[in-house]
Amino acid sequence: MGRCDSLAAFTEEPGRITRPYGTPSLAAARDTVARWMRDAGMDVRVDAIGNLRGRIEGSDRPAPALLLGSHLDSVRDAGRYDGPLGILVAIEAVARLRARQQSLPFPIEVLAFADEEGLRFQTTYLGSCALAGAFDPAFLELTDGDDVTLREAMAGFGNPHALADAVLRPNEAFAYVEAHIEQGPYLESVDLPVGVVTGISGQSRILASFKGVAGHAGTVAMDLRRDPLPAAAEIVLSAENLARQTPGLLATVGTIDATPGASNVIAGQVRFSLDVRHPDDAVRNDAVRGLERQTREIAAARALGVEWRVAREHPAVHCDAPLTSRLAEAVSAAGLPVELLPSGAGHDAVVMSEAVPVAMLFVRCGEGVSHHPAESVTTNDVAVAIDVLDEFISALTDERRQ
Amino acid sequence: MGRCDSLAAFTEEPGRITRPYGTPSLAAARDTVARWMRDAGMDVRVDAIGNLRGRIEGSDRPAPALLLGSHLDSVRDAGRYDGPLGILVAIEAVARLRARQQSLPFPIEVLAFADEEGLRFQTTYLGSCALAGAFDPAFLELTDGDDVTLREAMAGFGNPHALADAVLRPNEAFAYVEAHIEQGPYLESVDLPVGVVTGISGQSRILASFKGVAGHAGTVAMDLRRDPLPAAAEIVLSAENLARQTPGLLATVGTIDATPGASNVIAGQVRFSLDVRHPDDAVRNDAVRGLERQTREIAAARALGVEWRVAREHPAVHCDAPLTSRLAEAVSAAGLPVELLPSGAGHDAVVMSEAVPVAMLFVRCGEGVSHHPAESVTTNDVAVAIDVLDEFISALTDERRQ
Repeated sequence: MGRCDSLAAFTEEPGRITRPYGTPSLAAARDTVARWMRDAGMDVRVDAIGNLRGRIEGSDRPAPALLLGSHLDSVRDAGRYDGPLGILVAIEAVARLRARQQSLPFPIEVLAFADEEGLRFQTTYLGSCALAGAFDPAFLELTDGDDVTLREAMAGFGNPHALADAVLRPNEAFAYVEAHIEQGPYLESVDLPVGVVTGISGQSRILASFKGVAGHAGTVAMDLRRDPLPAAAEIVLSAENLARQTPGLLATVGTIDATPGASNVIAGQVRFSLDVRHPDDAVRNDAVRGLERQTREIAAARALGVEWRVAREHPAVHCDAPLTSRLAEAVSAAGLPVELLPSGAGHDAVVMSEAVPVAMLFVRCGEGVSHHPAESVTTNDVAVAIDVLDEFISALTDERRQ
Repeated sequence: MGRCDSLAAFTEEPGRITRPYGTPSLAAARDTVARWMRDAGMDVRVDAIGNLRGRIEGSDRPAPALLLGSHLDSVRDAGRYDGPLGILVAIEAVARLRARQQSLPFPIEVLAFADEEGLRFQTTYLGSCALAGAFDPAFLELTDGDDVTLREAMAGFGNPHALADAVLRPNEAFAYVEAHIEQGPYLESVDLPVGVVTGISGQSRILASFKGVAGHAGTVAMDLRRDPLPAAAEIVLSAENLARQTPGLLATVGTIDATPGASNVIAGQVRFSLDVRHPDDAVRNDAVRGLERQTREIAAARALGVEWRVAREHPAVHCDAPLTSRLAEAVSAAGLPVELLPSGAGHDAVVMSEAVPVAMLFVRCGEGVSHHPAESVTTNDVAVAIDVLDEFISALTDERRQ
C-alpha cells in the first residue's frame, strides 16, 4: 500500500495522477519499480517499447516462464491502484517465494507495461501489444496532442528499432496471470475481497469526427449553418439510448473536442471518441454498425463531412480454463468462497491472450470507483490477493515438478 | 491590404492567426501599428489595459475628439481583416487629411483595442470596457486556461494600477466611429462594397457546466451512470431547435470540454459556452431564460450538478441617428446607394455606446465568412471604405467649423 502511495507521486500534473506513455513521470515510476524488483531478487530490463521486465530464473533452463504483472501508465486524474497494484502484488509474491527459498521449476517474469490506458496516443495496450506480437508498425506514426509521433516518444523511452526483439518467442512463456482492481461494484456487493475472472468483454474504440464550416456566432443565420456540434450531440444521445435499451451494452463518449473552440465561433470540426463494450461480440458489432450508420446519416442530413475510424477492436476474451481453475483453487485454499465474474473493463490480459493462456484475479475496490482519485482498496484485501497469488504459484510449482 | 497581410504574421500559433490579449504576438502587432500611426503624424500611447491610442490634435484646444478604430486581437485561427481593417482604414483616412493639410477643428484619436474577442479570458470587449468606464475590477481576477489572472497578463502589457486613467473623461470625445467587415453575406447579396449599420443585436454569453461522476467506461452500468456529456448534448440540441424556431434568434455552443477527457473514462464534468443573440432584447431574454430552465431541469432529471453563469450581457445597441445620417451622406457622396443593415455580431461600438454616440460602417466580405482563415475583402471595397470615412470626417469638419 505504501508503494502504491509512492508511485502516486510520479505524475505529469501536480496534484493529480496523470502518467501517460513515454513521459518523464512514467520513466521515474519505472526506475522505482525496477529498484523494488531488484530488491526482490529479480534481474531487470526495459524492452523496446519501454515495458519493464523483472525476471527470476527457475531451476529448469530453458523453460517457459510464468508471466505476472499489469500496467504502470494511467488515465488522466487517475486513482493509485488501477495497474500498479497488479505489478506490486506480483513483486511481493515473488519476494515471498525468495524469502522462503522456494525452488522454482520455471522462471517468473513480472511485467510493468508502459501503456495500457492509451491516454497519450488514443490506442490502448501498446505495451502488451509489443510482447504479444500485435504491435502494428503503423502505430509508430500515431501522434499525440502535440503532434509528437509514437516513434519519437519511444526513442527516449525504449528503442523503436528493437521492436522485433520485444515479441515473446515460442515457448518463452506458458501463462500470463494478472491481478487488478475490479473497477466495478460487484465484489463489494457480495462482500468478498477477491474474485476470479471468467473473461473480458469485447471492446470497440472509435474515433469519429464531423466536419462543417466555422463561422461567426452572430452573423450566420441558423438555416445557413453547417455546425458539426449538434451532429455530435445527436450521436452522444443515440449511443446512450442504444446502450440503455440493450442489456449488457456499454457505450461511452469520453472525449469531445470542438475546434476552433471559442464561445463566439461556430465550430468547424468536432472530434469525439466512442467506446462500445459487450460480453457477446455479435451484440457489440451490431451496436457499432448501427451507430456508424446513424453517424453517416446525420452527416448526410446536415451536409457535414464525416470520419469514422475504428482505432482498436478486441473480441471478447475467455480466460484459460485450467489456469482459471488453479486460481479458483488458490482462492479456496485461502478459506474464501470462489466468486467467478466477467470483466467489463479491458486489461493487458486481452492482448496477452493472443500469445499465451491468461487468467485474472480481481481485487475488490471501494464503491466500484476507478479512473478517479477516489479509487480505493483495503490493506486486508491486498493481503488476500498476495496470499492467493503465492498459493497459485506454489501449486503450479508442485504440479510442474511432478 | 499589405498592412493586413503584415499583421497576420503576428500570432501565437505558427501557421494560423491566433492573437489573444496580453500575448507577445499582440504586443508586437501593436508596436507595428504604432509605427504606422507615427508615420501618419500621430502621437502614440498605450493605456492601462494595453489599448494603443494614436492622436492628432485639432485647431480648437481643448475640444472633444472624434474616436475611430477597432480591435487588434483575434479569435483562434482567425482571418486577417476582423478588427485590424477598421484600425488601418482609420489610420489611412487620417494620413490623407494630413497629406492635404486639412485643418481640423477637433482632435482625432485612432484606437486599437487590446481585447474584443475575449479569446483568452472568455470576456469580450475588455479593451473598450476600459475606455467606456465599464471595466469591472472583478475582471482582474479572471483566469485564462493556464490559471494566469488578467491582472498578471495586464502587468507586462499595460498597467493594472492605472485603469482609472484609461477611462474617457467627460467631453474627451464626441463620437466613436468604427469600420469593420460585415462578417455576414448581406452586402455581397446586394452587391455593394459598404453598408451603414443601424444597430447591433443584443448578446448573452453564458458559461455553463454539468457535473456528474467520472467512472470506467467498461464497468459502470448505464443505469448507474451520472454522465454529464449526454446532458450537455441535450442542451446543444435544445439551443439549436429553439433558434431555428425563433425568427432572428442565433444560439451557438462554440466550446465544449469534457474532463477528465479520455476515451475509456466516463466524463465527470462538461463545461460549455452558449452565445445567444437577437436584435430585440425581450426575445433574447426569453430564450436565455428558457434555456436556463431546461438546463436546470436536465440536471435534476440526471442527478447532475449544474452551473449557469452569464459571463457577459449586452442589450441591443442603436447607432446614433445624426452620426449615422452623416455616414449615409458620405456613402451617397461616394456615388453609392445607401444600404442600412443591422449587425448580428458584437463590436467595440457596443461598449463605446455607453460613453459616446457611435456609428459603424460595414465593408463587404467574401461569402460572409469570418473568424476563419478564408476571411476576405477586396482592395476596391477597402478603398471605398477609406473614401467614405475621409468624406465623413471632412463633412464633420465643415459642420463643426460653421
